[in-house]
Amino acid sequence: MLGNTFGRMFRITTVGESYGIGKGSGLAVIIDGVPPGLKLSDELVQEEMDKRRPGVGKLNSPRLETDQCHIFAGMAQDGVTTGAPVGIIIYNVDTQDIHIEQYKQYKDLCRPGHATYGFFKKYGENQDWCGAGRSSGRETVGRVAGGAVAKHILEQEGIEIISYTTECMGIKAREMSYEEAKANLRKNEINCPDLEAAEKMEKRVLEIKDEGDTAGGIIELRIKGVPAGLGEPVFDKLTALLGHAMFSIGAIKGVEFGAGFKVGNMKGSENNDQFTQKDGKIRLKTNYSGGTLGGISSGEEIVMKLAIKPTPTISLKQDSVNMPKNEIEELSPITRRDPTLLGRIYSVAEAMAACVIVDSLMMARGYDNVCRVENPWREI
Amino acid sequence: MLGNTFGRMFRITTVGESYGIGKGSGLAVIIDGVPPGLKLSDELVQEEMDKRRPGVGKLNSPRLETDQCHIFAGMAQDGVTTGAPVGIIIYNVDTQDIHIEQYKQYKDLCRPGHATYGFFKKYGENQDWCGAGRSSGRETVGRVAGGAVAKHILEQEGIEIISYTTECMGIKAREMSYEEAKANLRKNEINCPDLEAAEKMEKRVLEIKDEGDTAGGIIELRIKGVPAGLGEPVFDKLTALLGHAMFSIGAIKGVEFGAGFKVGNMKGSENNDQFTQKDGKIRLKTNYSGGTLGGISSGEEIVMKLAIKPTPTISLKQDSVNMPKNEIEELSPITRRDPTLLGRIYSVAEAMAACVIVDSLMMARGYDNVCRVENPWREI
Amino acid sequence: MLGNTFGRMFRITTVGESYGIGKGSGLAVIIDGVPPGLKLSDELVQEEMDKRRPGVGKLNSPRLETDQCHIFAGMAQDGVTTGAPVGIIIYNVDTQDIHIEQYKQYKDLCRPGHATYGFFKKYGENQDWCGAGRSSGRETVGRVAGGAVAKHILEQEGIEIISYTTECMGIKAREMSYEEAKANLRKNEINCPDLEAAEKMEKRVLEIKDEGDTAGGIIELRIKGVPAGLGEPVFDKLTALLGHAMFSIGAIKGVEFGAGFKVGNMKGSENNDQFTQKDGKIRLKTNYSGGTLGGISSGEEIVMKLAIKPTPTISLKQDSVNMPKNEIEELSPITRRDPTLLGRIYSVAEAMAACVIVDSLMMARGYDNVCRVENPWREI
Amino acid sequence: MLGNTFGRMFRITTVGESYGIGKGSGLAVIIDGVPPGLKLSDELVQEEMDKRRPGVGKLNSPRLETDQCHIFAGMAQDGVTTGAPVGIIIYNVDTQDIHIEQYKQYKDLCRPGHATYGFFKKYGENQDWCGAGRSSGRETVGRVAGGAVAKHILEQEGIEIISYTTECMGIKAREMSYEEAKANLRKNEINCPDLEAAEKMEKRVLEIKDEGDTAGGIIELRIKGVPAGLGEPVFDKLTALLGHAMFSIGAIKGVEFGAGFKVGNMKGSENNDQFTQKDGKIRLKTNYSGGTLGGISSGEEIVMKLAIKPTPTISLKQDSVNMPKNEIEELSPITRRDPTLLGRIYSVAEAMAACVIVDSLMMARGYDNVCRVENPWREI
Repeated sequence: MLGNTFGRMFRITTVGESYGIGKGSGLAVIIDGVPPGLKLSDELVQEEMDKRRPGVGKLNSPRLETDQCHIFAGMAQDGVTTGAPVGIIIYNVDTQDIHIEQYKQYKDLCRPGHATYGFFKKYGENQDWCGAGRSSGRETVGRVAGGAVAKHILEQEGIEIISYTTECMGIKAREMSYEEAKANLRKNEINCPDLEAAEKMEKRVLEIKDEGDTAGGIIELRIKGVPAGLGEPVFDKLTALLGHAMFSIGAIKGVEFGAGFKVGNMKGSENNDQFTQKDGKIRLKTNYSGGTLGGISSGEEIVMKLAIKPTPTISLKQDSVNMPKNEIEELSPITRRDPTLLGRIYSVAEAMAACVIVDSLMMARGYDNVCRVENPWREI
Repeated sequence: MLGNTFGRMFRITTVGESYGIGKGSGLAVIIDGVPPGLKLSDELVQEEMDKRRPGVGKLNSPRLETDQCHIFAGMAQDGVTTGAPVGIIIYNVDTQDIHIEQYKQYKDLCRPGHATYGFFKKYGENQDWCGAGRSSGRETVGRVAGGAVAKHILEQEGIEIISYTTECMGIKAREMSYEEAKANLRKNEINCPDLEAAEKMEKRVLEIKDEGDTAGGIIELRIKGVPAGLGEPVFDKLTALLGHAMFSIGAIKGVEFGAGFKVGNMKGSENNDQFTQKDGKIRLKTNYSGGTLGGISSGEEIVMKLAIKPTPTISLKQDSVNMPKNEIEELSPITRRDPTLLGRIYSVAEAMAACVIVDSLMMARGYDNVCRVENPWREI
Repeated sequence: MLGNTFGRMFRITTVGESYGIGKGSGLAVIIDGVPPGLKLSDELVQEEMDKRRPGVGKLNSPRLETDQCHIFAGMAQDGVTTGAPVGIIIYNVDTQDIHIEQYKQYKDLCRPGHATYGFFKKYGENQDWCGAGRSSGRETVGRVAGGAVAKHILEQEGIEIISYTTECMGIKAREMSYEEAKANLRKNEINCPDLEAAEKMEKRVLEIKDEGDTAGGIIELRIKGVPAGLGEPVFDKLTALLGHAMFSIGAIKGVEFGAGFKVGNMKGSENNDQFTQKDGKIRLKTNYSGGTLGGISSGEEIVMKLAIKPTPTISLKQDSVNMPKNEIEELSPITRRDPTLLGRIYSVAEAMAACVIVDSLMMARGYDNVCRVENPWREI
Repeated sequence: MLGNTFGRMFRITTVGESYGIGKGSGLAVIIDGVPPGLKLSDELVQEEMDKRRPGVGKLNSPRLETDQCHIFAGMAQDGVTTGAPVGIIIYNVDTQDIHIEQYKQYKDLCRPGHATYGFFKKYGENQDWCGAGRSSGRETVGRVAGGAVAKHILEQEGIEIISYTTECMGIKAREMSYEEAKANLRKNEINCPDLEAAEKMEKRVLEIKDEGDTAGGIIELRIKGVPAGLGEPVFDKLTALLGHAMFSIGAIKGVEFGAGFKVGNMKGSENNDQFTQKDGKIRLKTNYSGGTLGGISSGEEIVMKLAIKPTPTISLKQDSVNMPKNEIEELSPITRRDPTLLGRIYSVAEAMAACVIVDSLMMARGYDNVCRVENPWREI
């Protein structure tokens, strides 16, 4: 029931779930608004896909999905985009009957912390009981594929997005410069660039995993190179669009820009970023505002913090509800799960942020002027 | 560069072209807003696909596409929809190198009557030169697949759409009742339910074909069972939405509702449909307004006429332009083509109309209340 | 119930009806997407308003509305736009109790040819019975005000829209060049630039008026200076957007581009516009396609024909329906009306076309690049 | 440049700034999607307007705006809505030349913490220098008027929104039940229902005010009575829409649902809300998820925390930038300001939340089925 398209001029529409019927089932994304003349390939997209792929470490779910992407439309014979929408499909691989049977067994139960209950209320008994359908984390495959194209566009524009874990179960990473953080991305499974903190975090998560439990955390997302002036007052401020994008990710429970909740204890004189000049360019002395002024990009780094809830799937007994019986029923432990989402979810946040920035650039500058390839015939 | 999504609550997003790169290329549609609990299958969609499929008769292009559709997402294990978007893909079959080479040869030339020139102006040299890309009639494959789902929904609601040829190169079919027209749909290649006129039309088209030329025509589209009250004043009147839908089909050059251009010579007293009662129900005595009053559905049959231009691809020499050379250049005859679009394009018009009606129903009634399956848990 | 916003990047939202409650009631438009630095004034907008104003001639309704517009927001102290949305309000003047009483008397009756019946079905007894509410022609006041701003923007871009009557009750104007037509706009009440034909048309309409009846007609709308490449494949082709816009005007029952319905009797070789060169510029030899190729602007003049139905309000008895009684009831003659809409409705068509062209320009070029005022600080 | 329309089926479009040109300038909102048959009046809307009105206490700006609203369109003669959009205008009162002169003096300077810099970058020198234009807090007048209508609709549906201050400059209110909080709303200027904490907060803010400075804080927003099932996966989750809405308010720097950033230190077994039964109804034992599961409403209270930055206007010297001179320049203290936004901004947050909930209800249920008045003629 709607809601699977995101963006105004750069627009992704996603579809699909982990368990389709029959052979050839999969997930896909249609990316509309891709400029012509852009080199794209399965490999380029796959690089981003691999960041969110499960089954690669001890902190991740053992589900065996290769998440191999195939561009099936939107490219010219010579491997460049044409201005037509780009279609990417990711076929399901790990759809064994044994897992379908397992899901079937519990199909009437709502898993605590999951979307199931709302889906039952909304869609009735036909809600997809197998593999959580569209409320599965696997839904984000299409977002990441779309985000890969967005990131590729941003790269041509000199805009870069990074994100990483800054906090997990009481362990905090130290603050670091963009460059230092960037240099240490994905150096460990929990994707914390403070390598010492990372070690502690991973140790803590593994302990929690052994308890049959899962761990939450906080990630930071930073965008460098965004020109001043992006976002449309008053309802489509850049903050509003980014907020929308982030809260569309199921596991995100909090979003901050710059000083975030700290502003509750700040005076105006502390919180206001005063102006200065660096190398002849107007800059802000501080960046408490996190890269936006009045919701419009300020030219400074965009800095967001995102609260990631612990994976709701746990190996402990919980009180569930059996919908048809209208009865509380104990849900048995479930074993296949991510002990924490921190090592993967950042790729989804980056993808969504990339889509928002490309979309906003195109709104301001026109779709013809982002990643512009020379077109000698153009009249517009 | 955008524009590949249509609809507000029932929404189709299409992608793809006839010649993708490599194996597995194809066209696809994502259908968002499909209610849960609907039985769907490849076969059901294929029935509509086959109406627009080329290569089946002497009036159609010899291109050998099977246009076989595959639902790859949005279905539960038991073959019913879940409320998630439905994904349908149609793989390309007839992408022989010989044809790609042929297209390559003419890639710098604008075919008269085709979209090529505008695409060059818009997208530059990266516009898809192979098989006309998104401006090919083949683009409509995704629309028809989406429309098949829309029609299936309308069927549950007792709404039906038919369309057929009423005029072709000076030969007019006689007017007929909905029932008579319906009984004679697709009885001939030109899809004219007046069987005598059809014979003459086909004969005329074959003559024109032999001249290396193509033929235009007019089709009528009728929708039965639409409840009164659809459409949103003032900009999204039902007429506006249907007008948008029809004029999004490349070959349609004119759209009329009811009396259409005849109103230019009518008095108010002639054109006003007065009220009457039939079987206790308020009805209109006449239907000059074509099923809408003030742009809102009146409960009467919606009647549209659509002007279909002759296929622009012809086997006669024409003055083209070579874009890089910026020179007028003669374009040689092209042989693979439809002598007329009349026998196929109606399926696209029906598909678009079906999408508009479902969308409008959902706007008025809520997506939860169209094709409603009982949901005992629903609170909304 | 929605539908009062039109456009994507240049967006008008209208509100209001002829009879509001109390003092200060009126109609308004909010125009979003107006570039900064544009000189605007009440006078400039009023010029367009006056084109659709009633009460000025014998072919028009005697209703005494001044339709005086007031820009109440969106302007800087020095009378230029700021990039903020522009608000224009038109207060109601002619809301005498005597007319309200008259409307009240017939409030349960559906006027044939009017929107009333659909509104009853849609909104129930609360539909606005006074002055036809949003289905009154007066609703278009906001569109014309918005269109005045759009036209002002187009003027800076060298784009111009004209429209005029070409046919009325069997009398046809002769074809004429853009320049000739332009030179003779609004030279007579029926706005027909063929002055001889105009005389005959007016005579015929006055005869029909004396019969207590009304007259339909056909108008032509031409847009000059549109660059090639406007419109977004596949659903938002320029033809689709213009079709949407035109069919959102209640009285329009048919829309044609270029050859329009004539294509039904044309061969491809006749209908295809071949290429040529004029003054070093690629041009089309003919313009049967009416300024669009594959729905994308071709750089040639955009030419549309619009079928205008006769005013539904007539001074003759008609069978109406009394909704609460569910009975057919005779409707008495109504005297205050336009004998034909031809002399006014063209201003609404022009306004809508202007909005579509500005919107499409902004989509392609970015809102920052239409009517661009130099901004030395811009980074985007 | 766009962005002044919010919502899909219930849609507000706002316009206006504090200082318009000439008499009759003001701010307005067009509310589209208002169901027919709803009783509305200036007084009903004014009640909400008064919550955000300045000039009423020592914690607020001394600006003398009455913010008197006038419904100028969308109502039938008998004071009920008709299904047409509702127009509300608020004329400017306090636009004395002395203040305009003051603004003019500083028109080239960017105020730290304000939107000015981004606006200069985006709109150039034509950005509205007077009263901050659309980036002024006064812009929210239209939102609150629109929100008043939304709240009125929600009231008929048994849905209620409250919000209040929970933290300010280190002083925290104690947690309280919905009922207790509701009973103590607006009992003090800082709108903190913990009356003891309120006293301390106000004292602290007055101290800060005396320093020429301003204070930030945190507010809580709670929505009671929302049925389970609202929100559209995957991009238009209820959390995403609410996040968008809240981050469209300039002063909001952080948004949390339920446990918010605390999830970073929670295990799955702690954070998961287990199911239980109360009075025969399925409920959650806890509400860490804050009323949404997978972004879809769960039927529990929706609970959000919002970080409100200190008013950027302060009476202390700050480094600003003079844009035309491209030089850092000291900005003198400004005296007319709110020492804290806490006592007013909550009304804007409530208004936006109300719009989102009505919009989401209408999406799920259809605009015809929210606040449904009996319509015996309806067919849809």
